[in-house]
Amino acid sequence: MDDDTPSYFVGVDGGGSGCRAVIADAMGHVLGRGDAGPANATTDLVLATLHAADAVYQAVSAAGLERDVLASTTAHVGLAGIMDLPMARQVAADLPFRARVSDDRRTFVAGALGDTRGVLIGLGTGTIAARWDGRKARFIGGYGLQVSDQASGAWLGRAALSEALLAHDGLRPGSELGEQLMTRMGGDPGGIVAFAARATPADYAALAPLVVTAAGAQDDIACDLMRRGADYIDRAVRAFGIPRGGVLCLAGGVGPHYTGWLADDLRAVLAPPRGSALDGALSLAMAQAR
Amino acid sequence: MDDDTPSYFVGVDGGGSGCRAVIADAMGHVLGRGDAGPANATTDLVLATLHAADAVYQAVSAAGLERDVLASTTAHVGLAGIMDLPMARQVAADLPFRARVSDDRRTFVAGALGDTRGVLIGLGTGTIAARWDGRKARFIGGYGLQVSDQASGAWLGRAALSEALLAHDGLRPGSELGEQLMTRMGGDPGGIVAFAARATPADYAALAPLVVTAAGAQDDIACDLMRRGADYIDRAVRAFGIPRGGVLCLAGGVGPHYTGWLADDLRAVLAPPRGSALDGALSLAMAQAR
Repeated sequence: MDDDTPSYFVGVDGGGSGCRAVIADAMGHVLGRGDAGPANATTDLVLATLHAADAVYQAVSAAGLERDVLASTTAHVGLAGIMDLPMARQVAADLPFRARVSDDRRTFVAGALGDTRGVLIGLGTGTIAARWDGRKARFIGGYGLQVSDQASGAWLGRAALSEALLAHDGLRPGSELGEQLMTRMGGDPGGIVAFAARATPADYAALAPLVVTAAGAQDDIACDLMRRGADYIDRAVRAFGIPRGGVLCLAGGVGPHYTGWLADDLRAVLAPPRGSALDGALSLAMAQAR
Repeated sequence: MDDDTPSYFVGVDGGGSGCRAVIADAMGHVLGRGDAGPANATTDLVLATLHAADAVYQAVSAAGLERDVLASTTAHVGLAGIMDLPMARQVAADLPFRARVSDDRRTFVAGALGDTRGVLIGLGTGTIAARWDGRKARFIGGYGLQVSDQASGAWLGRAALSEALLAHDGLRPGSELGEQLMTRMGGDPGGIVAFAARATPADYAALAPLVVTAAGAQDDIACDLMRRGADYIDRAVRAFGIPRGGVLCLAGGVGPHYTGWLADDLRAVLAPPRGSALDGALSLAMAQAR
């Protein structure tokens, strides 16, 4: 690359609810941002690729640049639902610019921990758990709500409905949260049945803030769930082991709310995430050029 | 009805995997049987109605009778997924013969307990829990696998996959069952993820026999799950209270396998189911005529 060619860096973070992109200069200063539709590679590989490209075009445009700058740009695209290397290569081959493609767990860790070693538990709609030694990540869990994703927002929301039904049936003590959920779903179990028959993980996760708030008010059901979620976090962190001198990072919309439910030794090494998966994608793009 | 008009009784039991019908004479002797496709009223009301009628026509034909006998027949049709009275009436109005229609829980209780009072826990693909005083039933639970159906076959199968993943990640002790499931699903978590992305409750329930067998061999994961399932049964039975002199009946394909996991006082009042939901439907049809 000639010294007089301006070089740009692109980071993309795509997930089931949308896809975001940034374009930055050689110093990492963001020049433009773009948004596009869902980009989960398992759900729809072609659409994920199209939306990733669309988000990048919008970022380029927002930066006041022309699309041809992408010919000399270094990009990292992290997408939810990338299951293996062949799938990542397929997306890379289909994108209308050169890019490295990974799953969004990779960008999530790079964004949250950067060059700090530690364990990352990402709890948004789903669960991501990673041990990061500064160069390589080891992942566990996050296999989807049906059989995994313990402690996540979707898991909290679904479990709260389940406990509300147990309370309704007299199989556990009731609580404010239980009644609140029952009322919200139409006042009887049939409403919950109808909701659950169609609910996506995102639909369940939309109930998680109610659980978090209720736990703050010592609600019986909510406290039970936060305790069970924290137990999963505890087991995951101890299975990994925190690297010497490393941190524990609880990220995602739900993650930090577990702080008060953790054992003291884990709370002592807590550190906030340094950045988002989008920041991680950009930093991985810039690391490629080094 | 004239004394010289032969009168027949029809019972129908319809569920998500198929629909069965019997036609019997006035003494309750079964003259013919019929089978047809899925008949879950929530999944597809029209198809459920068509399949119920089809099963009855086949039973009539198998009995060597003509369809016009249905003009003077008393029928009870129990279908899964009947949520309320208007839905039951809709099916009754659409059937090409006169019938009372109820959900399959009603026929299940009538078949299993008949004129014996008690608590019925039906554990097949899903869960049915009922307290029966000989005339009326009170139901709890069974709100579907997403938020309920604890202890059921589908619940056992799905929970076993979940525990197998936890064992794979080092978050719980592994076991034969965990490895068996992992191997069956292709040898890595990706196989379970792919299975779970498409699995119906029936698909999960197909794994339940593995859990039951493993529990018999003291498998760690399997024993944990049977214990958790038995805990749900225990809580449900005690929430109901067994009527004085009544029995506890564990029905369905999975139900009896919990026997060894129950508290002594519950085991002491166990009684096997007297008959199936199809028997129950026929007995309800005959009771209508009395």
